[in-house]
Amino acid sequence: MDTFRRYNPLHTCMMGVASVLLLLFTLLPAAAHATPKALVMKPFAQLSDESKECAACHKDSNPSIYAQWGRSKHYGANVGCYECHQAAPDDPDAITHEGHSIAVIVSPKDCANCHTQEVEEFAASHHAKAGQIIGSLDNFLAEVVEGALTMNGESPAAVNGCWQCHGSEVKVMENGDLDPATWPNTGIGRINPDGSVGACTACHQRHEFSMVQARRPEACGKCHLGPDHPQKEIYEESKHGINFFANVDRMNLDSGKWIVGEDYDAAPTCATCHMSATRELPITHDVGDRISWTLRPAISEKIDAKAIASGQETKSWQARRADMEKVCDSCHTKPMVDNFYQQFDSLVELYNDKFARPGKALMTVLKEEQMITDTGFDEEIEWTWFYLWHHEGRRARHGAAMQAPDYVQWHGMYEVAERLYIEMVPQFLELVEHAEHEGNVEGAERARAVLDEILARPEHAWFSGNEPEEVKAARKEAQAAFKARYVEDNKSH
Amino acid sequence: MDTFRRYNPLHTCMMGVASVLLLLFTLLPAAAHATPKALVMKPFAQLSDESKECAACHKDSNPSIYAQWGRSKHYGANVGCYECHQAAPDDPDAITHEGHSIAVIVSPKDCANCHTQEVEEFAASHHAKAGQIIGSLDNFLAEVVEGALTMNGESPAAVNGCWQCHGSEVKVMENGDLDPATWPNTGIGRINPDGSVGACTACHQRHEFSMVQARRPEACGKCHLGPDHPQKEIYEESKHGINFFANVDRMNLDSGKWIVGEDYDAAPTCATCHMSATRELPITHDVGDRISWTLRPAISEKIDAKAIASGQETKSWQARRADMEKVCDSCHTKPMVDNFYQQFDSLVELYNDKFARPGKALMTVLKEEQMITDTGFDEEIEWTWFYLWHHEGRRARHGAAMQAPDYVQWHGMYEVAERLYIEMVPQFLELVEHAEHEGNVEGAERARAVLDEILARPEHAWFSGNEPEEVKAARKEAQAAFKARYVEDNKSH
Amino acid sequence: MDTFRRYNPLHTCMMGVASVLLLLFTLLPAAAHATPKALVMKPFAQLSDESKECAACHKDSNPSIYAQWGRSKHYGANVGCYECHQAAPDDPDAITHEGHSIAVIVSPKDCANCHTQEVEEFAASHHAKAGQIIGSLDNFLAEVVEGALTMNGESPAAVNGCWQCHGSEVKVMENGDLDPATWPNTGIGRINPDGSVGACTACHQRHEFSMVQARRPEACGKCHLGPDHPQKEIYEESKHGINFFANVDRMNLDSGKWIVGEDYDAAPTCATCHMSATRELPITHDVGDRISWTLRPAISEKIDAKAIASGQETKSWQARRADMEKVCDSCHTKPMVDNFYQQFDSLVELYNDKFARPGKALMTVLKEEQMITDTGFDEEIEWTWFYLWHHEGRRARHGAAMQAPDYVQWHGMYEVAERLYIEMVPQFLELVEHAEHEGNVEGAERARAVLDEILARPEHAWFSGNEPEEVKAARKEAQAAFKARYVEDNKSH
Repeated sequence: MDTFRRYNPLHTCMMGVASVLLLLFTLLPAAAHATPKALVMKPFAQLSDESKECAACHKDSNPSIYAQWGRSKHYGANVGCYECHQAAPDDPDAITHEGHSIAVIVSPKDCANCHTQEVEEFAASHHAKAGQIIGSLDNFLAEVVEGALTMNGESPAAVNGCWQCHGSEVKVMENGDLDPATWPNTGIGRINPDGSVGACTACHQRHEFSMVQARRPEACGKCHLGPDHPQKEIYEESKHGINFFANVDRMNLDSGKWIVGEDYDAAPTCATCHMSATRELPITHDVGDRISWTLRPAISEKIDAKAIASGQETKSWQARRADMEKVCDSCHTKPMVDNFYQQFDSLVELYNDKFARPGKALMTVLKEEQMITDTGFDEEIEWTWFYLWHHEGRRARHGAAMQAPDYVQWHGMYEVAERLYIEMVPQFLELVEHAEHEGNVEGAERARAVLDEILARPEHAWFSGNEPEEVKAARKEAQAAFKARYVEDNKSH
Repeated sequence: MDTFRRYNPLHTCMMGVASVLLLLFTLLPAAAHATPKALVMKPFAQLSDESKECAACHKDSNPSIYAQWGRSKHYGANVGCYECHQAAPDDPDAITHEGHSIAVIVSPKDCANCHTQEVEEFAASHHAKAGQIIGSLDNFLAEVVEGALTMNGESPAAVNGCWQCHGSEVKVMENGDLDPATWPNTGIGRINPDGSVGACTACHQRHEFSMVQARRPEACGKCHLGPDHPQKEIYEESKHGINFFANVDRMNLDSGKWIVGEDYDAAPTCATCHMSATRELPITHDVGDRISWTLRPAISEKIDAKAIASGQETKSWQARRADMEKVCDSCHTKPMVDNFYQQFDSLVELYNDKFARPGKALMTVLKEEQMITDTGFDEEIEWTWFYLWHHEGRRARHGAAMQAPDYVQWHGMYEVAERLYIEMVPQFLELVEHAEHEGNVEGAERARAVLDEILARPEHAWFSGNEPEEVKAARKEAQAAFKARYVEDNKSH
Repeated sequence: MDTFRRYNPLHTCMMGVASVLLLLFTLLPAAAHATPKALVMKPFAQLSDESKECAACHKDSNPSIYAQWGRSKHYGANVGCYECHQAAPDDPDAITHEGHSIAVIVSPKDCANCHTQEVEEFAASHHAKAGQIIGSLDNFLAEVVEGALTMNGESPAAVNGCWQCHGSEVKVMENGDLDPATWPNTGIGRINPDGSVGACTACHQRHEFSMVQARRPEACGKCHLGPDHPQKEIYEESKHGINFFANVDRMNLDSGKWIVGEDYDAAPTCATCHMSATRELPITHDVGDRISWTLRPAISEKIDAKAIASGQETKSWQARRADMEKVCDSCHTKPMVDNFYQQFDSLVELYNDKFARPGKALMTVLKEEQMITDTGFDEEIEWTWFYLWHHEGRRARHGAAMQAPDYVQWHGMYEVAERLYIEMVPQFLELVEHAEHEGNVEGAERARAVLDEILARPEHAWFSGNEPEEVKAARKEAQAAFKARYVEDNKSH
C-alpha cells in the first residue's frame, strides 16, 4: 500500500453513535492535552462507504474480526476496514475484491499514515532488522540441517519456525495471492510486498490493536521464550512478574499515558522497562533504547560496541543505561539500582571470561587447523558450543539481567559449566587426537596448547586437580569462619 | 452405579430458596430456549431427604465440597449428593454408609442419567480409550523400566504417573474399599467398577463442575503439557493464548451457549476449537472430531488412515478439517486459513519424510538383523529414537499445528535434527560395527546400505559433505540476491 | 537495627484520614476478635515526623514506593518509613541520611517489633537455615566449578544465582555502604548485618507487604521452580492449580483470617497447605510444619529422621502428616486422603529403593576404590548422579506429592531410569575398567560385584535380559486378561 491511499476517501454518514462519541471526546476540556494522535492527525467524521461495504459481509462471515474492531480505538475514530486495507491498483499485493482494490497485508507503511512516530522509532530498532538477519545470513539450520526446500522452494522449518518470529519476505504469487510459504506471518521484521519492514500486528494483535494486550508480558512471550531466550519465563520468576500477576487489576493497563509511578506502581511489565513512558522518558518503539549489554552473541559486549567499531553514530551504552535507571528509580532507590547493575555486570563478565572466550578459542583453533569441516553442525562439538552460548549462556545472562536466580544457576551457569568441562573438552581432545593420528601433529600440538593455557588459568585449575593448596585452604578457612559466626546447629539439615 | 438409581427418589421440602429460584427460572420467558438440559430432563422439585442427610454431616466435615456444590448448577436443580452417589446394593463398588447404599465413584454411566448426549459423544472419542491403551499395551516403561510391582501388585510409577492421565482400572478390594493403587484417579479413560469408561471429573472438577473451569486452557493442561505433548505451553506461546490471557474478562466463559463469534471474540481456548459450539457446529465431547492429522505416532498420518485401512467407517479427515475451518472462520478469512493449513501440512510432511521414516527404517533393520534385543529401552538407541519422535518430533508438529514458532524450532526440529545426526547415526554405526565383529557380516552390510541410502538423499547430503556444488551455489546466490534487495546496512548486528 | 528503636518515636498529627479510619476500625464491634496484631501491639496515633520527612522526598524520587506503602496496612496503622528503617547509631549498617540514623535493610529483628510470632515461627523453620546451608557447605559449584571470586571476593554465580534464593551474608563496606556482592538480596535465609536471619521481603514484597501477593503461588515460585524443584510448575499442572486460576476471583485472598473451607473453597495455594489457617490449625510461618517426607536429598527419609538420629526433639512426621490431613479434610473425604498418601509414599519408596540407594552405592564404591577423585564434578558420572537425584528424582517425588502426573513420569521416573541404565551404568563400568587397567584389579572386582548385585535384583533383571520367564509370562497374561475384559476394538488407535 502506498501513502496516497487515504487522500481521497469518501465519507458518508452512518455510525451516529461513533460520531457523537467523537464529538463529546473532542469537546471534553480534559482531553485537550491527551487527545490520541490518530484523532488529531486523521479524524474521519464518519465511517467510509467502502468500510461499510466491507463490514456488511465480514460481520457475518468473520464476526469476531468485526467485534474486535468494534472494541478498538479505530472504531471510535471511524478508521474502518477500507481505511487500512485499501490499495492502489499498482501496489504489488493489490487484489480486486468486490470491485475495490485492497491488500490483505496492512504494513507499517500503511500504519505510518497515522502512527508516523511509532513506525519511525520501530524502523530504527533492532526489531526491524529481524527479517533481514534471518534472510541474509545463511539460515543453514532451518534450510539445510533441519529442513528441505519442499514448500514453494522454502523450508517448512523456516516457514513454521524462524520466520514466525523473525518475519518472512512476503511474496505475491503470479495469481495475485500471497505465497502460503510466506504468509500468514506476523514476524516482527517481516519484509512486506510494499518494501516496508515490520509487522505491527506482531505485538498489536488484530483487529483490536489493544494497548492492554501489547503491554502484558505474554505479548513479548510470543517470541521471547524457550530454551534460547527465556525472557518470559525469567520475568515470571522475577519479583517483577510475581507482583504483576498478583496486582494485574491495579496495573491500569488501559490508561493512555501509562506512566510508571503515576498510573501504576505495583510492577513493571516488559513494556514498562523497555518501551513505555516514565515521568522523564517518552514512549519509544525502539526496544533497545535502554539496553546497555547485548546478551545475544556468544560473547557479550556493550550494545554500542559494534557501531563504534564500524564508525557509526549511536546512543552510547552509558546513555542507554542511564535511561533504564530512570525507569528503575520509579520504584527503587539509587543504591539498590547501582548495586544491582554491579551484580548483573559481574555475571556477564564471568560468563564471558570463564566460558565464552575460552569456548570460542577452542572452536577457532579447531577450524584453523581443519580439525572440523567448514560445514556447520556436522560435528558434535559444534552443537555443544552452540548450546553453551546460544542456549545456556544466554539463560544465565538474561537471568541476571532480570533477576531470576534459577535461570542464572540451574538453567544457566550450572549447565554452561557442564557443557564446557564434561562435553566440550573431551570432544575437543578427541578431534585433536584424531587429527594427530591423521598426521596433523603440529596442529595437534598447537590445539592442545590452546586448551592447556585455558585450563591452567586459576578459574579452571580445579578441573585438572591443580587448584593451589592455598586456594583450597582459604576456601576451607572461609567456610569454617562462616560456621563459627553463624551455624550453631545445622544437624537437622 | 446403575441407571435405575434415580427412578425412585424421595423428595421432601427443605431448600426453599433453591425452589423459588427454580420457579423463577422456569417462569422467565427468556429462559425458554436456554433451559439447561438437566432441568428439562430431570427436574427435582426439592432436595431429596437423602441428600439433606449427607449434607448435614459433610458440610461440617468437608465444608468446601458443600460450598462447591452450592455454587454448581446441580444445586439449582436439586441434584444433591445422593442423586449422584446413590448405588444399588449389588453395584460392584456399593458400600453401606450411614444406612444408605452409596458409591464413592460417580461414573459416566451415572452422569449419563441426565447428560446422555455428552457421555455418548465422549464414549466415541479417542479420550475414552486412554485407559484401555495404557492397560492393554505392555506398559513396559512404567511397570518394568521405571517401576516395580510394589503397590498392591501395581507399579507406583504407573499409579502416580501414567494412570493419572490415562485412567486406572479401578478395583474394589475385598473389604469393599477402593484399591489405593487405583483410586484416587481421574484419568480421562478410567475404567470404572460399573464397567463404564471415563471420568467426567478429569475435566469438570468436582464438586462445582464449572463450565468456566473446563473451558480454560489449564483444564486440558492437566495432561496436555510437558516434554512429550506440550499443548498447553504451545497455546500459551501462540497468539491465541496471548489474547486469552489479555482478555479473559471478556471471554464470557460462564455463558451457557458460548458460541465463538457471538458470545466471545477475543481468543479461542482449547475447548473453542476442539469441542465448543460455533455458529454452524454443535458442541461435541469427541475431541478428535475436528482433527485432521494424528500427531501422536512416530510417523504422522491422516486421522482416518487407520480406520480406513481396517475397513471401519469413520468421519474423513477432510470432513474433520472442514469443521475445524468453520471454527477458524469465526475470526479469520479464508485465504489465511487455507494458507495456514498449507504451512502446517508442510511441516508434518517434512518431519515425516526427512526424520521419522528414516529413523524408523534404521530401527527396523537393527531389529531384523538382531543388532538390538527384543527388549525395549535396554539399548541407548531405543531411547534416542523415542526422544526423536515421542518428545521432539511431537513438539515440532504440535507447534506447527497451533502456531508456537519456538516449539517448531528450538524445542522441535532443531532437537530432532541433532538427535538423528549427532546421536542416532553414530549409535547405529556402533551397533553395526559390533555386530560385524561378532560375525554378522551380511547383516552389517545390509544395515549400512539402509543408512547410506538415507544419507545419500538430497536432504541429507550436507551431513556427509556431499551437498552438490550447484545446491550450495544456489543458496549463496539467493542470499546475495536477498541482501541486494533489502540489506543496506546491517553492520550493527 | 535494634529492638529499642521504636521506644521513643515522636508523633505529630498529619494524616487525619488514616486516624479516622483507625478509630472507626477500633470502634467496630465485629473487629474485636479480628483486630490485626500490629494495631494491638503498636498502635501509632499519627504518622511520625520522621516518616513525614522521608515521604516528602521519596514520594517524588521513588513514587511507586510511596504508592505501595499507601496501599499497605502499615499506612493505616501509621507505620511509616522511619518506623521500620530507623537505626541506632551503632547498628552495623546504620547510615546517616538527611540527619537521621537509618538502615537500608529492614531485618526480621525489626519486623519482630510488631510481628513477633511470625518471626519466631520463621526462625524455627528450615527456611531460616537456607543462607547458612549455602554459606557453610562448600558451595563448590557456584564458587569453583561455575564461578570465580571476581566480585569483591565473591562469585557472581553465587551472587546472582544461589544467594538470591538462599540468602547472602550481607556485608557493610568500610564506607558504610552495603557490599554490592551481598545486596540487593532477598534470599529467604539472608544473614543480616544485625545478626538476624531471613528476609521477610522474600515473600512479602516491599513496600505493600500484601497478603494477596504472598498467598499466590507465584510468590513461592520465586525459588521453587525450575529443573531441580519445580513445585510451581507441578502446582500449575495439578487440579489444585487448575482450579486456582479458574477461580482466582473467588479466592478471597485479601481476607484477614483466610480459613480454607470458610473464606474460600475453590482451590488451595501453596500457602493454604503449608502455612495458612484451617478450621483447626493456626497459621504458621514454619513451612515444614505439615511436611512428612523430605524430598530434597538423594535418598528421601521421613522429615524427623535426622533429628531423631541426633537425639533432638522435633515434631514427629506422623504429627506433621496428621496436620496436613486436616488441611486435606477441608475439601476431601478421608478415604481419598488416606489412599492418596499411600500412592505418594509408594512412589517415594520406589524411587529410593530402585534408583537412589543403588546410585549412591555405586558412587560410594567408586570413591572408596579411588576410581574418582575427591574433587566434585570433575568426572562425568558425578554430574550424572547429581542429575538423577537432584533434578529428576526430585521432580518425580514432588510430582507425586502434589499430583502432577507429567512430572512423575516424563520429567521424572522416565528420566531417572534413563539416567541410571543408559548413562550411569556404562560410565561406572568405564571407570572400573580404567582402574583395572591401571592395576586396581581387586577394586575393580569389588566395584563390579556391587553393580552385579544391584542388577541381579528382580526390579533390574529386565535390563540384563535376565527377567525370569514366569515374570514375563505373568505380564503377558495380565495384558491378555485385561484385553479380554475391556478392549473390544482398539484398532483405530
